[in-house]
Amino acid sequence: MKTTAFAPMLSIGTNVTDISFYEKAFSAVEVRRFSNDDGTIHVSELMIGDAMFHLHEDAYNGRYYSPHKHNGTTVTIGLFVEDVQAVFDQAIAAGAELISPVKDYEYEMRQGELRDPFGHLWQIQKDLRK
Amino acid sequence: MKTTAFAPMLSIGTNVTDISFYEKAFSAVEVRRFSNDDGTIHVSELMIGDAMFHLHEDAYNGRYYSPHKHNGTTVTIGLFVEDVQAVFDQAIAAGAELISPVKDYEYEMRQGELRDPFGHLWQIQKDLRK
Repeated sequence: MKTTAFAPMLSIGTNVTDISFYEKAFSAVEVRRFSNDDGTIHVSELMIGDAMFHLHEDAYNGRYYSPHKHNGTTVTIGLFVEDVQAVFDQAIAAGAELISPVKDYEYEMRQGELRDPFGHLWQIQKDLRK
Repeated sequence: MKTTAFAPMLSIGTNVTDISFYEKAFSAVEVRRFSNDDGTIHVSELMIGDAMFHLHEDAYNGRYYSPHKHNGTTVTIGLFVEDVQAVFDQAIAAGAELISPVKDYEYEMRQGELRDPFGHLWQIQKDLRK
């Protein structure tokens, strides 16, 4: 059992209700959701396989914000999966923007990169050293 | 064995050579490093326990940048560990900025939040539902 695991929390901005992209793209399953009084998302907890991640509205007095705010990201979401091409294709079909198609790199990683509708960069990957 | 795992890649800006904070704070072990010709870091691959993450210089024509650039982050780095308080204390001692001390929340997570010297937010946590 892994005792240490990363679980990134992605800012999705404010007034969001539709996060179905993540379900369609990555077969993510929402575990629980905390909504604001107006029904918009405060935080959503999801699983992709056995890996947890969160979506969260903007917070920290403007110091935690959606990639759309400043047209870019401070973190790329690396996601290790068994079948990189299959996950990548599913995400593109769900509406992700293709940044780099899947290929095997000389540093022994199979990687494909995409941008999701909220502006987050995802690197779908497999470690070829294993 | 987990078949799916997140491995965030944190932008550290440009002209960085010293990433010893992560070793001191989280007992991270650098697996490999790709440097630029001038010796600054292009990408560093590290492990915290059995969880991989990367540090990467700014890229994508300005669309992937250090938190210092726009005074904030688009992703919080959630990190599940066994002993939240011990990891949190070690990180603070290594120079992290305390954002929220460790406590147990009503949503059944033990969490402490800090900001690292590169501006990234980390949420050190344990899932109390397990």
